[in-house]
Amino acid sequence: MRILITGGTGFIGKQLAQRLLDENTLTFEGQAPRPIERIVLFDTFAGEDLPSDPRIELVTGDVADPDVIARVTDGVDVVWHLAAVVSSAAEADFDLGMQVNLHGLMLLLETLRKQGNAPRFVYASGFAVFGGTLPDVVNDDTALTPQSSYGMQKAVGELLVADYARKGFVDGRVLRLPTVAVRPGKPNKAASTFFSSIIREPLVGLPAVCPVRPDTQVYLTSPRRIIESMLLGMTLSPQTLGNQRILPLPGVTTTVADMVSALQRVAGDEAVKLIRWEPDATIQRIVESWPSRVEAPRARALGFTADPDFDAIVRAHIEDTAPTRSS
Amino acid sequence: MRILITGGTGFIGKQLAQRLLDENTLTFEGQAPRPIERIVLFDTFAGEDLPSDPRIELVTGDVADPDVIARVTDGVDVVWHLAAVVSSAAEADFDLGMQVNLHGLMLLLETLRKQGNAPRFVYASGFAVFGGTLPDVVNDDTALTPQSSYGMQKAVGELLVADYARKGFVDGRVLRLPTVAVRPGKPNKAASTFFSSIIREPLVGLPAVCPVRPDTQVYLTSPRRIIESMLLGMTLSPQTLGNQRILPLPGVTTTVADMVSALQRVAGDEAVKLIRWEPDATIQRIVESWPSRVEAPRARALGFTADPDFDAIVRAHIEDTAPTRSS
Repeated sequence: MRILITGGTGFIGKQLAQRLLDENTLTFEGQAPRPIERIVLFDTFAGEDLPSDPRIELVTGDVADPDVIARVTDGVDVVWHLAAVVSSAAEADFDLGMQVNLHGLMLLLETLRKQGNAPRFVYASGFAVFGGTLPDVVNDDTALTPQSSYGMQKAVGELLVADYARKGFVDGRVLRLPTVAVRPGKPNKAASTFFSSIIREPLVGLPAVCPVRPDTQVYLTSPRRIIESMLLGMTLSPQTLGNQRILPLPGVTTTVADMVSALQRVAGDEAVKLIRWEPDATIQRIVESWPSRVEAPRARALGFTADPDFDAIVRAHIEDTAPTRSS
Repeated sequence: MRILITGGTGFIGKQLAQRLLDENTLTFEGQAPRPIERIVLFDTFAGEDLPSDPRIELVTGDVADPDVIARVTDGVDVVWHLAAVVSSAAEADFDLGMQVNLHGLMLLLETLRKQGNAPRFVYASGFAVFGGTLPDVVNDDTALTPQSSYGMQKAVGELLVADYARKGFVDGRVLRLPTVAVRPGKPNKAASTFFSSIIREPLVGLPAVCPVRPDTQVYLTSPRRIIESMLLGMTLSPQTLGNQRILPLPGVTTTVADMVSALQRVAGDEAVKLIRWEPDATIQRIVESWPSRVEAPRARALGFTADPDFDAIVRAHIEDTAPTRSS
């Protein structure tokens, strides 16, 4: 099995690659396990802490560069397309967001189409495809109303991948991801990055800023659950999926206040005191424009699940980062 | 007022240009009338029966050619973007549909953005953005579920224009058009072309083929109403529109049987006998995948209206084509 992960040096890409290496095989529903022969991690930067394994190949370059895309897609059986310019960055630099999030995807899809192998293709979308005035509960059939260029680019990406799948050019699967927290590593330029910072930093004795009110609602998923969803989204058979290729994923609906309570239960009052509350109207507005109450029956019927609650997410984060913290 | 109409040698482009020339001015809501200085009709082919007026400039070329797009957009105040590869053609030739319907639009939007004048920009979309299993009545908030590459490209176009409008790059307005009938001229490669043929051809004593069952439902608008909608969509002020830039338009819901009854009432039994019923499963499937019952409260509140009924559409067609028929 020859694998391409774009955005491969990001934390999801690395964790996914490590998981595939650990499993040693990838098993499509209804088929025999196939050995992992090669995993290309493609990204704009080399990153750090990449899995150390001879099957890993790191390629750095621009996702909108035809030569490098032709090279990394050559002969691939499966693609996880995770590369993206995140929300705030795509809003601040329209050209960059369009280049990576839209033209990069289009180039990748066209290159795969012209190769003619119709590989499986998992596309990471997100609930930023919604915005503005939303129904109380967003479901599988709610109209997309992005209020950011990132959200528009993801919505367009969903439509493109679905049509390339319908035409048989790629065996496409769109996973619409809840906000991921607690992310390991450092803050990024996503408007949602503080959802991780306010837990991750205090847990290691560092200060963090929370730019939104405690009553702010959010729809979350853990990194662990994302990896499970990435694998399930890839392995489900085309027959099982049918023509429903856009899968909004289950998640946990919580509030910032409840997240902080979970932190307190796990790490005590001192940890909570490390959070500085500095309201930022722009971030408040962006975050509130995303849905927080979501029903995802299509994905649930296919076996996708949510974390039990936010406490479980915090505990998992502590387990997963323990070796790093003690080293 | 310097005007660009892409797809300008198509029948809507020509009628719109003639109407603008007849009026001599274009009046934005809340502003003084402004004289029509120049109308560039841009299309891939020169067409025929163009309005004869010194203010008309015909430019032929490829909507995905940066040089020609830079030329036709130079200094424009308003753009009607009507150019498109129609449904069956975009499905049969994926590359052509992507090139014109998607890359052409993207080039046009980028060129206008870089010029920095934020012209008004009316984008012609259509109800082919819907498909598959739909609610009984489609409304302003129904999720887009295209089941054709044409529908996907129009859905993507809506998202792009809305985001370029949100960012202030163009003053964009999306008009989601019902199927237009009775179109003058000849059949084209739209799956919907027969909706016009079965009326237009018998009215002049020519045979026509109907590829769908009489009970097939359809959501229609007349050419006259389209021209009114094109003008209203352009002249409404940004303040009136607010951030609701995607406007599904009112139309008439009818059946093929009722259309044929209208033909009979106007032109008698002999006309109806000129229709040959030759079921085509593919066209039946495509047409049935489009919504036929639509509520369009957003556009109605802004003043957009539907034709009274299909009889009125037939009578208008006869009036509008009378000079040609007698010449």
